[in-house]
Amino acid sequence: MYDSIKKYRFGKPIQTNAVTYEIALSTGEPDYIQISENKKTIEYKMGRNDKIYGLGEAVRGINKRGWIYESYCNDDPLHTETKRSLYGAHPFIIVDGENVFGLFTDYPDKVVFDIGYTDIDTISVTVGSPDYDLYIIFGDTPYDIVKAFRKLIGKSYTAPFWSFGFQQSRWSYYTSKDVQSVIDGYRDNDFPIDAVYLDIDYMESFKDFTVSEERFPEFDSFVKEAVQQNIHLVPIIDAGVKIEDGYTIYDEGKEKGYFCKDDKGKDFVAAVWPGKVCFPDFLNDSAAAWFGSKYKYLIDKGIDGFWNDMNEPAIFYSENRLEKALCKISSYKGKNIGIYDFFGLKDTVLGLSNSGEDYSAMYHNINGESVCHDRVHNLYGYKMTTSASNAFKEIAPDKNILLFSRASYIGMHRYSGIWMGDNQSWWSHIKLNLQMLPSLNMCGFLYSGADLTGFGDNCTEELALRWLALGIFTPLMRNHSALGTRDQEYYRFKNTEVFRNILKLRYALIPYIYSEFMKAVENDDMLFKPLAFVYRGDKLAEAVEDQLIFGDNMMIAPVYEPNALGRYVYIPEDMCAVRFRSETDFTFTDYTKGHYFVEIPCDEVVVFIRKNTLIPLISSAPSTAQLDYSTMKFIGKITAPYVYTVIKEKGILNGISHTEKTNYRIIPDNDTCVYNNYTIE
Amino acid sequence: MYDSIKKYRFGKPIQTNAVTYEIALSTGEPDYIQISENKKTIEYKMGRNDKIYGLGEAVRGINKRGWIYESYCNDDPLHTETKRSLYGAHPFIIVDGENVFGLFTDYPDKVVFDIGYTDIDTISVTVGSPDYDLYIIFGDTPYDIVKAFRKLIGKSYTAPFWSFGFQQSRWSYYTSKDVQSVIDGYRDNDFPIDAVYLDIDYMESFKDFTVSEERFPEFDSFVKEAVQQNIHLVPIIDAGVKIEDGYTIYDEGKEKGYFCKDDKGKDFVAAVWPGKVCFPDFLNDSAAAWFGSKYKYLIDKGIDGFWNDMNEPAIFYSENRLEKALCKISSYKGKNIGIYDFFGLKDTVLGLSNSGEDYSAMYHNINGESVCHDRVHNLYGYKMTTSASNAFKEIAPDKNILLFSRASYIGMHRYSGIWMGDNQSWWSHIKLNLQMLPSLNMCGFLYSGADLTGFGDNCTEELALRWLALGIFTPLMRNHSALGTRDQEYYRFKNTEVFRNILKLRYALIPYIYSEFMKAVENDDMLFKPLAFVYRGDKLAEAVEDQLIFGDNMMIAPVYEPNALGRYVYIPEDMCAVRFRSETDFTFTDYTKGHYFVEIPCDEVVVFIRKNTLIPLISSAPSTAQLDYSTMKFIGKITAPYVYTVIKEKGILNGISHTEKTNYRIIPDNDTCVYNNYTIE
Repeated sequence: MYDSIKKYRFGKPIQTNAVTYEIALSTGEPDYIQISENKKTIEYKMGRNDKIYGLGEAVRGINKRGWIYESYCNDDPLHTETKRSLYGAHPFIIVDGENVFGLFTDYPDKVVFDIGYTDIDTISVTVGSPDYDLYIIFGDTPYDIVKAFRKLIGKSYTAPFWSFGFQQSRWSYYTSKDVQSVIDGYRDNDFPIDAVYLDIDYMESFKDFTVSEERFPEFDSFVKEAVQQNIHLVPIIDAGVKIEDGYTIYDEGKEKGYFCKDDKGKDFVAAVWPGKVCFPDFLNDSAAAWFGSKYKYLIDKGIDGFWNDMNEPAIFYSENRLEKALCKISSYKGKNIGIYDFFGLKDTVLGLSNSGEDYSAMYHNINGESVCHDRVHNLYGYKMTTSASNAFKEIAPDKNILLFSRASYIGMHRYSGIWMGDNQSWWSHIKLNLQMLPSLNMCGFLYSGADLTGFGDNCTEELALRWLALGIFTPLMRNHSALGTRDQEYYRFKNTEVFRNILKLRYALIPYIYSEFMKAVENDDMLFKPLAFVYRGDKLAEAVEDQLIFGDNMMIAPVYEPNALGRYVYIPEDMCAVRFRSETDFTFTDYTKGHYFVEIPCDEVVVFIRKNTLIPLISSAPSTAQLDYSTMKFIGKITAPYVYTVIKEKGILNGISHTEKTNYRIIPDNDTCVYNNYTIE
Repeated sequence: MYDSIKKYRFGKPIQTNAVTYEIALSTGEPDYIQISENKKTIEYKMGRNDKIYGLGEAVRGINKRGWIYESYCNDDPLHTETKRSLYGAHPFIIVDGENVFGLFTDYPDKVVFDIGYTDIDTISVTVGSPDYDLYIIFGDTPYDIVKAFRKLIGKSYTAPFWSFGFQQSRWSYYTSKDVQSVIDGYRDNDFPIDAVYLDIDYMESFKDFTVSEERFPEFDSFVKEAVQQNIHLVPIIDAGVKIEDGYTIYDEGKEKGYFCKDDKGKDFVAAVWPGKVCFPDFLNDSAAAWFGSKYKYLIDKGIDGFWNDMNEPAIFYSENRLEKALCKISSYKGKNIGIYDFFGLKDTVLGLSNSGEDYSAMYHNINGESVCHDRVHNLYGYKMTTSASNAFKEIAPDKNILLFSRASYIGMHRYSGIWMGDNQSWWSHIKLNLQMLPSLNMCGFLYSGADLTGFGDNCTEELALRWLALGIFTPLMRNHSALGTRDQEYYRFKNTEVFRNILKLRYALIPYIYSEFMKAVENDDMLFKPLAFVYRGDKLAEAVEDQLIFGDNMMIAPVYEPNALGRYVYIPEDMCAVRFRSETDFTFTDYTKGHYFVEIPCDEVVVFIRKNTLIPLISSAPSTAQLDYSTMKFIGKITAPYVYTVIKEKGILNGISHTEKTNYRIIPDNDTCVYNNYTIE
């Protein structure tokens, strides 16, 4: 297997633990690519029709050709199509043309991927300093390369079964009453739900590992009551630790020297939600272990899910630079300032946040050596997340604790999921959500999803509905929205029944979703595949950017335009479309290979089942815990006996879901597409 | 005709001159709509499938349903899909459902159109004060309603023939040498071009009606030399007049009291490009006439085209509010400010520009009465533009001077065109460009176009090419980009020949483009029509959001996605597709009604000609002045004799193009789609 990967080392790379196996170093000129003399730039001349895949969390299409991207963890919530970086850093690409190969530049600071931007025919990959490991992955197809790369970087995180249920979030539900009213909103309206999120306001003054006594009194019992309603509460944990004498986490971190330093060796101070904070030095193993142990406080209260946030790390401003900025601005006072001074003022204020200058002034202690944050920027969120993941196995080996993060780097996929960050209530972000799924899968991130309804700005009912019709297929299925936006919980919309039906359909599909997810983990496979990966050689399929093969048996083609009657769908082989009005009300249509305009009203979900396969369907339930697999039937069209393997979570061993496989054998019957009869093998 | 329009008056409306005919006032309850007791809100319950058209310059689709919009001139360059207002204010909508009617709220300040945003089934139109004229336009179809409305608001502006040629702009060509090198770039590469733009830097310190001696020495000869190369130079004129003693325009305006005032009756001072400025009070007829007369300075130098900018009016900051902001910010200095203070600081700085507070502090002199800017905000750019237009007819009745504006209101369409403002190099803005065209046409604006390649941010070669393939159909065809962006002149790209071919195709199509434009002016018709307007009753056609009927004979369906093989096209009736590789190399394909995936490589332009019609095509030339109509042929498929009327600009009378019509009669010939033979009637 590993003959198909060559590894080159330049300079003295910082070890990222992105890969899990050692590969002997190659020497000499690598195949295909040209490396500049200073080793900082890798070039490749593309053919006119070459396609480029990869880059995980990034804007634009599945084919990344035609833009310049940066692998750089970046807290920027305005994901317009010309943004170069989002929250995750995933410096892996695949070239699919005359030559087919993957390129992984294992380098934990900024990597610039110019993919036909400066020159329409050239890929140019540039690192800041020539210290990195370069992996070239060979294979017959991009799909082969993904599988080889995924083997190299190790098995993906397996989220707990309950986290495949629907989850509701908002910034913020301020009190336990708010949370309970959301639970009631879903339960009273007969909408299934498994989790409600606690955004930053559950804490006391935004202090990690505290709970506001005032707003969440008797939190332990509240968590337990939620559990009795089959609701998991999932609190946020931010990277910054509030500077406050007497706050244990701060006091301990300070005393033990566990915070990042400035260039004078003093604790580096920046401001985020709690005001002034220090950043735990997650690159220092002792500090990481210390911080990880703190999750116990919440786990002991019954919490079994966390989202790690603000861990790029996001910085609103640093003490030093703010003071300088205020000095500069004050000097304008009373003066007749010109237009360029005004723009300077604007830039000064806007430039205070997430500034490279601050990152350059921040230092880590890696095995006793002081390392500038610049050199390891993309590892910060990753290491925050492994600190939690490692601790969970100690604290609660009998639980599989849900964990996902905003910032990420390749390798982190073994420890947690990610969400797609602070998106917007934009139609274009439905499509971005769809297009990012396979790209993330290529980089190992299987447990993922976007903030349904959109985080920033206000969604409309139609947007919420159309996005939901994609969201029911994503492993992480969470509705989340920002402070100041409209209420976006699904039960609040006018067409309640339609939302209910689609949400229930998610639960009816969970046997398929969970089984296919676990198979993808086990086989280092993708859960969401571009059509290009499955129908290789079909030029039309290879160009499809808005449909996905979901698991092995299903194609999805959601609507992502307002006021649409439906959408165009390319059917790459004979398929059986299922038109769901609800989990119990659905019809079948046969499609042969070709182009179709498929009418998809807002109250329907249409999926396409591949020929001679079936998908399982059960009765929905108010929560994943209440799902009854004995209600299982199979739907689709087969002409030969078909075996489907259902994977169920059986228990937890060392913090990991322990599963059981059941083979269902179904015998074809020309008269039906719904099989209630099968034999279990 | 006017029986089909009812006019209601509420309160004491400010007269906008949007309409050109008086209509007797109706009383009693208007049909269809509910008006709130305070007259500030108009409501309408939509049917589930109602479509809503109109609103001119706005984000989102042709069908405006599903968002909240504001008719409010707003300088905001980030046209994401959740923006409520852009530069133009066009408070006209059409409801197409069980009831079919148009609604024009003639009110020159903000009008909020909530079209199924707050409630998915409700339209709610709200004005700030109950002083407005309300027009309800009746008709059998939305298209009928557009025509009736267009008659009401008067004939659209007729741009000069040369302005249908290609035009190149950039912020900025700093010197006459820069301009000449762009002219050379186009001419030397055998690309046709008719105009080059002068953005703000041609002026001396951004002072209107000045030319930098240093950077544009001997400007008069330079203009003349350009004319000899068949190049029109088109300078920008900004609304703000620099405060500078000794600068004639300022001195005169100040002396005569022609500037907008503050609440104490002193000149209102704000800052834009020149630094501190006063705003000419265009709502004061004498001030408007005075400012208009100043264009003579440039017209006398040979200039025959202008773009009026910054006339919402854009305000970077006002003196008063900046000083307050600086005081507030200075007070933070040395203090341990919290996170909310920091956000306050950010908001303070960002809130300085284009603030409602400033608009409320600005006063006009309308016929001797002091009127707060708030009440007439949307008329400012309109009146700046009529001031120029009226002056042109005095200064140079023998010229048809090109004029277009950024800010606009309905009524201004009689005096000038508009461009779509400061867009971005986004693929989504190609589609927005397409979708805005028919909406603008509904409101009377026929001479329009978007900044091709995108104004803000950097375009890629593929984006430039695909956008160009739409841009060749827009009357205003201008490539423009912002300070700091990549060079985006077409001759600079790698695939020079492809750009050249497409640009030449524009010139080959000018007889069609100009003739159809002039017919639309003459008949109060639309140049770009949604398929819904032409194929009424065809449910599929009615839902199409990304194809347009261009003129009477052609359908366009440009590609607006990166890395696309082509796109889906709905063919609403039998059509003949022309696949252009160049003006001389093209092939024909017949399509019958239905859905198709049409392959469209980047180096081809595909158009669809309606059955039994033809379009004229001539040989391209380096400029419109050099076009030779004797090279005319016709292309398409006919089964009966067909007559096409070509309209040519014959001369200028009172500042308006004086035209001549020629009927070309073509006899069908089954063997060909290219007709070189015809009789001229």
